[in-house]
Amino acid sequence: MIEPLKWVNDKLHVLDQTKLPLEEVYIEVDDLNGVISVIRDMNVRGAPSIGYTAIFGVAFIIKNHEESLWGDKIKELIAARPTAVNLEFEAKKSYGFARKHLELDSQSLFEKVIEFALETMKEAHQMNLEMAHWGEVALKKYVSKSRYNLQTHCNTGTLACGTLGTALGIIEKLVEKNEVEKVWVDETRPYLQGSRLTAYELEKMGANYDIVVEGAASFLMSRGYVDAIFVGADRIAANGDTANKIGTYNLAIIAKSFNIPFFVAAPLSSFDFSLSKGRDIEVEMRSQTEILNYKEHRIAPFESSAFNPSFDITPAELITAIITEKGMVDAPNTQKLKWLIEERA
Amino acid sequence: MIEPLKWVNDKLHVLDQTKLPLEEVYIEVDDLNGVISVIRDMNVRGAPSIGYTAIFGVAFIIKNHEESLWGDKIKELIAARPTAVNLEFEAKKSYGFARKHLELDSQSLFEKVIEFALETMKEAHQMNLEMAHWGEVALKKYVSKSRYNLQTHCNTGTLACGTLGTALGIIEKLVEKNEVEKVWVDETRPYLQGSRLTAYELEKMGANYDIVVEGAASFLMSRGYVDAIFVGADRIAANGDTANKIGTYNLAIIAKSFNIPFFVAAPLSSFDFSLSKGRDIEVEMRSQTEILNYKEHRIAPFESSAFNPSFDITPAELITAIITEKGMVDAPNTQKLKWLIEERA
Repeated sequence: MIEPLKWVNDKLHVLDQTKLPLEEVYIEVDDLNGVISVIRDMNVRGAPSIGYTAIFGVAFIIKNHEESLWGDKIKELIAARPTAVNLEFEAKKSYGFARKHLELDSQSLFEKVIEFALETMKEAHQMNLEMAHWGEVALKKYVSKSRYNLQTHCNTGTLACGTLGTALGIIEKLVEKNEVEKVWVDETRPYLQGSRLTAYELEKMGANYDIVVEGAASFLMSRGYVDAIFVGADRIAANGDTANKIGTYNLAIIAKSFNIPFFVAAPLSSFDFSLSKGRDIEVEMRSQTEILNYKEHRIAPFESSAFNPSFDITPAELITAIITEKGMVDAPNTQKLKWLIEERA
Repeated sequence: MIEPLKWVNDKLHVLDQTKLPLEEVYIEVDDLNGVISVIRDMNVRGAPSIGYTAIFGVAFIIKNHEESLWGDKIKELIAARPTAVNLEFEAKKSYGFARKHLELDSQSLFEKVIEFALETMKEAHQMNLEMAHWGEVALKKYVSKSRYNLQTHCNTGTLACGTLGTALGIIEKLVEKNEVEKVWVDETRPYLQGSRLTAYELEKMGANYDIVVEGAASFLMSRGYVDAIFVGADRIAANGDTANKIGTYNLAIIAKSFNIPFFVAAPLSSFDFSLSKGRDIEVEMRSQTEILNYKEHRIAPFESSAFNPSFDITPAELITAIITEKGMVDAPNTQKLKWLIEERA
């Protein structure tokens, strides 16, 4: 079992994801500076994992600093990665929780926030298990086989989520039931989360998998090698349009052309009803060097430029079903998703 | 201007493509062993370029070896890369040509074969120019703009072809006429021919281009950033189904879904009428390490495996037009392609 965040002997043990998959090294953290450094240096990555790390950061602030400094220290913590929404969200939420228990001495309050962190992770894991259930329901509704060939993109497992994970969590539970023939892992250029992280997780699961380049999708699907596709989501608009790692939209179009089910797995917290459709989502552009270099090695001519959108937006009509912890929504649209959120959340 | 093969002072100067794009180094070759080594070590690559290099090899054999050894030496030359069809074809053809002029002394025969090599390249360049003309005709038939945004895959230019090239040759001629707004270059995983070679050629042309990951295709097309796509072909079946670098089929499906013209540019010599349709083409599987490693650096877990088909087969119905040196064929099918070959070849 992979544990990207472990709480042992009053220290947070952070699996250093920058060293994966070739080395498994834990960094021990027991103060705010340590938390800021693992977040800033991307030793911990994935929105949920960063969020949980932030809660431990709040606990260390309470333990090590005067109450009058807490507000400033929280700001320092949030500034570690300004674009990480979960970081700010979890830091503020857990700090709000702490402030409701100011009657406690600082050691007891520290312990209470640690408990809060562990409880938050446990709840998320439980939600992932629910999602895995609905993922299996969705798959079996659309494909009838005893063992499945599944394709996935990017990393949506324990490393990203801190807990079981979303799309890869569904796959993991199917692997445990011995219902997976093969997983096709997109290497996921430019940052190679598939080759580096998803492959690492599948290896730990003992799954049968092969890494492929994104360019191979049509080849695989045209030969009947893929029964269904599971991907995660960064954000989902009210109508079901889904922002996810660049390359997701390609997969959805290609899957549609071969009539292969395409599933998006995401917690309800990924829905943003302030956005009526996907085109309202602003796409983050990332550094050219992710494409032009491999680590410190230059690939392209020194004069070259690259265009590096970090995600794309898959229109809802290409999505067979969206899978959440509260159920699945086939052929998603605004009405159905609103109903799910309002009735089930 | 890029010259992958130059004939200077009785020596063949071979641009070392393994060192591109970061270093431009020529290897001087003046004997059979030199020719074998640049072919075997992939200093020269691309089927046509390897073929021309082989002709120079035949000339060196004639100059440096007894006539009684020629047959064996030709076999040695062909064995340098056993799967390179052009290598065998050009070596045998030029050796046959030489044997028709055995009345000449060996120095004169050497010179005659060199002339034959240079003439062969000149004719190929002329064919590429014709193809560039038809490519422009095709583009302007389907898209009406003063300046175009074009996407391409892999490397189909001077480095691969020794001469102007096919898909990239068409783009080069449009760049010269200042009719290209931007070229989107697929980096072309796993071997990165786009980032390394096509970018290098576009840089030399002074074209405006950006390198993108294959995963970005739908993003680009959905935003209206692509007016047309030009790719090459490894082999074309009688019905127009086209084998080309892995990732081509994805592009064709995605282009179709956005109603963007998708053009295949290839000389008549790429057509194989012994194959009635694309599914008869055997797909070469290449080494896993191309995906699992970057040069000597491991990307994926050491235990991981990868699946690496080197090309895919795009069905004719996804191809807007096939462009040859003898004309273009819209909505290609067996009948139209037969007509082109029989009437125009």
